Amino acid sequence: MKKLIPQFLYSSKAAQKFALCFAMIIGGAAEIKAQTKATWIWYPGDYEIWLSNKMQNRRTERGSFFPPFWKLDSHYVLIDFHKDYNLSSAEEAEIAVEGQYNLKIDGKAATGYPKTITLPAGKHRISLKVYNQGSVPAVFVKSPHVVSDTSWLVTFEDKEWIDASGKTSDVSATQYVPAGAWNFNAATSTPSQFRLPTVPQKAVSQDKKTKSILVDFGKETFGYVKLHGVKGKGKVTLYYGESKEEALDTKGGELLDIVDADQQHSGDITLDGSRAFRYVNVQYDGDVSVNDVSMLYEYSPVEQRGSFRCSDEQINKIWDVAAYTMQLNTREFFIDGIKRDRWVWSGDAAQSYLMNYYLYFDSPTVKRTISALRGKDPVTSHINTIMDYTFYWFISIYDYYQHSGDKAFIKQSYPGMQSMMNYCLSRRNTDGLMQGLSGDWVFIDWADGLSKQGEVSFEQMLLCRSLESMALCANIMNDTKGAEKYSALAKDLKAKLFNYYWNAQKHALVHSCVDGKPTDNVTRYANMFGIFFNYFTEAQKQDVKKYVLMNDQVQKITTPYMRFYELEALCAMGEQYYVLKQMKDYWGGMLNLGATSFWEEYNPDKKGAEHYAMYGRPFGKSLCHAWGASPIYLLGKYYLGVKPTAPGYQTYVIEPQLGGLKWMEGAIPTPKGDIKVHCTTNKINLSSATGTGVLRIKSKSKPVCKGETLKSLGNNTYELSIQKDKAYAVQYTAI
Amino acid sequence: MKKLIPQFLYSSKAAQKFALCFAMIIGGAAEIKAQTKATWIWYPGDYEIWLSNKMQNRRTERGSFFPPFWKLDSHYVLIDFHKDYNLSSAEEAEIAVEGQYNLKIDGKAATGYPKTITLPAGKHRISLKVYNQGSVPAVFVKSPHVVSDTSWLVTFEDKEWIDASGKTSDVSATQYVPAGAWNFNAATSTPSQFRLPTVPQKAVSQDKKTKSILVDFGKETFGYVKLHGVKGKGKVTLYYGESKEEALDTKGGELLDIVDADQQHSGDITLDGSRAFRYVNVQYDGDVSVNDVSMLYEYSPVEQRGSFRCSDEQINKIWDVAAYTMQLNTREFFIDGIKRDRWVWSGDAAQSYLMNYYLYFDSPTVKRTISALRGKDPVTSHINTIMDYTFYWFISIYDYYQHSGDKAFIKQSYPGMQSMMNYCLSRRNTDGLMQGLSGDWVFIDWADGLSKQGEVSFEQMLLCRSLESMALCANIMNDTKGAEKYSALAKDLKAKLFNYYWNAQKHALVHSCVDGKPTDNVTRYANMFGIFFNYFTEAQKQDVKKYVLMNDQVQKITTPYMRFYELEALCAMGEQYYVLKQMKDYWGGMLNLGATSFWEEYNPDKKGAEHYAMYGRPFGKSLCHAWGASPIYLLGKYYLGVKPTAPGYQTYVIEPQLGGLKWMEGAIPTPKGDIKVHCTTNKINLSSATGTGVLRIKSKSKPVCKGETLKSLGNNTYELSIQKDKAYAVQYTAI
Repeated sequence: MKKLIPQFLYSSKAAQKFALCFAMIIGGAAEIKAQTKATWIWYPGDYEIWLSNKMQNRRTERGSFFPPFWKLDSHYVLIDFHKDYNLSSAEEAEIAVEGQYNLKIDGKAATGYPKTITLPAGKHRISLKVYNQGSVPAVFVKSPHVVSDTSWLVTFEDKEWIDASGKTSDVSATQYVPAGAWNFNAATSTPSQFRLPTVPQKAVSQDKKTKSILVDFGKETFGYVKLHGVKGKGKVTLYYGESKEEALDTKGGELLDIVDADQQHSGDITLDGSRAFRYVNVQYDGDVSVNDVSMLYEYSPVEQRGSFRCSDEQINKIWDVAAYTMQLNTREFFIDGIKRDRWVWSGDAAQSYLMNYYLYFDSPTVKRTISALRGKDPVTSHINTIMDYTFYWFISIYDYYQHSGDKAFIKQSYPGMQSMMNYCLSRRNTDGLMQGLSGDWVFIDWADGLSKQGEVSFEQMLLCRSLESMALCANIMNDTKGAEKYSALAKDLKAKLFNYYWNAQKHALVHSCVDGKPTDNVTRYANMFGIFFNYFTEAQKQDVKKYVLMNDQVQKITTPYMRFYELEALCAMGEQYYVLKQMKDYWGGMLNLGATSFWEEYNPDKKGAEHYAMYGRPFGKSLCHAWGASPIYLLGKYYLGVKPTAPGYQTYVIEPQLGGLKWMEGAIPTPKGDIKVHCTTNKINLSSATGTGVLRIKSKSKPVCKGETLKSLGNNTYELSIQKDKAYAVQYTAI
Repeated sequence: MKKLIPQFLYSSKAAQKFALCFAMIIGGAAEIKAQTKATWIWYPGDYEIWLSNKMQNRRTERGSFFPPFWKLDSHYVLIDFHKDYNLSSAEEAEIAVEGQYNLKIDGKAATGYPKTITLPAGKHRISLKVYNQGSVPAVFVKSPHVVSDTSWLVTFEDKEWIDASGKTSDVSATQYVPAGAWNFNAATSTPSQFRLPTVPQKAVSQDKKTKSILVDFGKETFGYVKLHGVKGKGKVTLYYGESKEEALDTKGGELLDIVDADQQHSGDITLDGSRAFRYVNVQYDGDVSVNDVSMLYEYSPVEQRGSFRCSDEQINKIWDVAAYTMQLNTREFFIDGIKRDRWVWSGDAAQSYLMNYYLYFDSPTVKRTISALRGKDPVTSHINTIMDYTFYWFISIYDYYQHSGDKAFIKQSYPGMQSMMNYCLSRRNTDGLMQGLSGDWVFIDWADGLSKQGEVSFEQMLLCRSLESMALCANIMNDTKGAEKYSALAKDLKAKLFNYYWNAQKHALVHSCVDGKPTDNVTRYANMFGIFFNYFTEAQKQDVKKYVLMNDQVQKITTPYMRFYELEALCAMGEQYYVLKQMKDYWGGMLNLGATSFWEEYNPDKKGAEHYAMYGRPFGKSLCHAWGASPIYLLGKYYLGVKPTAPGYQTYVIEPQLGGLKWMEGAIPTPKGDIKVHCTTNKINLSSATGTGVLRIKSKSKPVCKGETLKSLGNNTYELSIQKDKAYAVQYTAI
């Protein structure tokens, strides 16, 4: 299932009925070819908030509902949509709306709830005002030349009143913004009925006893269990397991479902709730019998455009399992892990975005996740209550712009960025630094004994980068004053970072200041970020590499989450050989233990079922966690070596690094097509469907490319300019 | 229908099914007598916002949906409820919840969605966490000693996370507030299914033709039209009319409904939408026939505790029609008028609260309306977009406290008052005054040619009073710093009010400053408020009375809305004789034109159907507008003369003023019972069920009251102290 064809299912009977009814009403109108594509539209960001509420409230723990502990926001319930059009002749438009609505032409309302309207010729305004409390106010309009799309404008307060004589108010103060949309491109594809598609999957083995069946699906999977041939009356209990141990531990597993069966005749039962598992232990009492157990695999139909293959089969396997781990965690949003939370966690998502740029380049999922995380004003706590997660959110927006070149999304997000940053700035201490105030979670990483006291250097570094991201976005918004303010704040904080935390004896940033004094504790976090944020001097980088990153005396990282950044720092310093070995040890270590997806945490020192425990619970650990998939990112960005140097890959660089591999090849998705690289120790083949690139390589000999001139930068380094839609074959000698 | 017995109807089948199911589950538990009353609870203010959204989206205009033009907010969709209890022995509790939920004892969740739970003996915490997007998360818990009520605490973000070892976060930062409730006191009385009760009403006359029936219900009424004996296929159109002219004007009336009938057998059809009307003109085509038309009158079951009777029959009629006008406009909230908007308008509601204190003293309706008007943060515009309406909102909260003594509501409202005031203060100009910025509606009143330019004195006066109200509430909240700040701002603004606007030549405040200079235009608004706000010196009051209030050269007021305040100002200056005549002319004038409820506007100069026009539409005017009911307030407060002098009528004053009447009598409701007054020119009988009062009267002779001593204040004024639950009969000689 490498390339999934987008497909949406609408399960509710109401939706089907509506579809039928709609078809009868609009009749032959569909034959006229539309100039542009009609799509369902809404207030930007609102569908994302609504859908994330729905998704984040699906978590259960041993059969109990387990919702998030932060504030969930809501969509605006009353929205005005409009479009000014100019038609040479009158047209008939189809209208579909989610909510109670009126439909106006030039401010004059049609009676009732029309399903079609005649759009008069000439310049006119069509507007719809929609109220919907339970789901998002949304409209779909389609005539040959007038269609609902993101060129429509929307507002949540139109300030359109009249005085006693009937004179209309000045509505110039009304704030209109472009409508939001996704890909609901048919009147019957109502946004509120959206569900991810499913496909049936069979178990690979079955162990059937008198009153139980234990099935194994062969690998980590996700979806709805289907019980076949259920007959009789009694209780059927499903114990799910990411491991066999978990499925068999009826007292200690994380997930279970109970079905009260009462079937005179044998029939199938599909569970309502989606669950993560490899094994399902189905136990039944009374006179219930169950024939078989299968499942409906639920997935997001994003297209896997990125690829990677190399001479090392273990690395290939790691990449494949990482891609599968990403697939499972790429759902309505990028979630943390499929078994437990299934929530949108900002720090986790920030990594998923980066992996996504090298696997799917699915911008809608990135944008949905960023919008959902922000929610609405007022800000009452950090994102997910975690200080560092707020900062990742800022940084990820500029990152998204750098990869996609999508200014419209910056424009949509900027007001929310400003109020979020105001919240952060208001929580600085008198010294301008941030420490965890009451109610703030300073997370950093899961690591034993990690101090969160005082002002942690890592948090200041992330805040500094967030302020830099704000300044960049302010410039995109032409907010000169804002750009100046954020730049000045970033500069000031960066100076403090080195004044307060750099310890020359330790050759590193120390972990924190407590009671105004720097501690002498050195941890990896701020030090590894300082490298790829490029905050260090060259000398400092070498110091940090030696005294921190390559120093076993400094507390080791046991989560793939922080290994992501640790290995990125090492790659940024050219340590691809070392990192390849680390990948094989760490991710290979999980594979050796039978992992079919990558874990939330992996400590090679643990044994057997110890690996499954976390949070004080025997199976608390998630065995399929998005942050486990970082090899996709590392191999794409630092081995194939492709990254954008101007927004949306207008320009980019390719710096292949074999890191000990004999050969490697792969595709990197970009907004306008793929960049393809094949690299051996003496030959590089590449082509690009986008922008203008630079191939930068080290070679013992002067590289040769037919019909092209390579520029020598000295120090055995050469550059070749890459034009789009052209194939290049370069002869060189790897160092 | 003077005293209505509270009664709630739950129409949906789902609710009935739930009720049945619930009864089966809990069985005999109901026999155990509960110590306190269980009631449905929610996050305070949230049900009010949700219900007001529902209500404010019922407006239609000629069959088109007509929603508000301001931002509508939503409830929090995820709420944590908890209660710490101490039980001597274990108890069984019934659980009912609106939403998806978990139920925990001491943080440990029960499996699934339990409908009962055993509460263990000893000190424990019961908590429920509920997600509900479409309606308000709400819970109902009932055991013999543990019941859901406003002693429970709630939060929308519990900040309760655990670390990797399973250690729980410090949740001391979680902001808990007391739960909100109303009177949903049974598990089956689910808040989301709430509907006002109805009773059938018959038309008083019918004019039946071949294809139409015109019915007259004899007076203004409100509810759901019922068509009897409908048979055949075709379109039935209902044209509603507050006047006969409106019902007959099928092109110009404000309200209509269309029913597509298709009935083989004769049957009844009740309309879904509630409408205001006296007449209904039912027209039908095709082969449809209709036998008869009746209605279901919908009303709020509040108890009418206040009363008034006097020697003048016209005044009695005015009071009765005013009371009926109030009844019609007292619904889920205090609304403006029943025909058109049916919205919650702050300025209109502020008057309804005051009338309510003399008619129902129904605090829940006041609190619901105040909470609904405020909505949630962030503040993006004035309340209803109107600057003056924001100010009335502040003032009405302290007013409510003064009448009710309800500190809990101040506590609930104070944060929202603060952010609303911050919004106002941020919109002052460099001189500290407020003028209408882009998007602000400066309303004041419906009056031809009334200038809204520049800084209007009336707005500054209302802001000043708002700041004083903030200071008073800050003191109640023990927010000393806030109290000082608001007092200082009020003092400063009051000084400006007189420095900038008082014109000694005009003996009055002028209407506005434009371009930094006072105009010489004098209007009634600021001048009449200055009297009962007690901002003027005694000399200024006399000047204003002579040169403004009693001066026909100053533009007349034609809305009962501002006549409310105009007559209040005159009453406050002892002009009860004059005001009685004004009431008879103005409200009597409407009665003479056949009014059965009081109007949005009345201009005696207009003729016939001219009276029905407004907003540039022939029947745009509302003939049943809450602000028309002010005689209730004036007669209670300034004739019977009863008003609180300490919060909640702990102390109060009674100053009867016959104003030319031979006798009058009535009851004034207070939180703890009624104050009853009967007054003739030589005898006053009174009793009170509450507090400690003072009867203050003017008498030519020294008054006598058996067993009591009256204190002489000089100037023919005497005082008698009134104790509760005691009857007083005073002999005196009216001046």
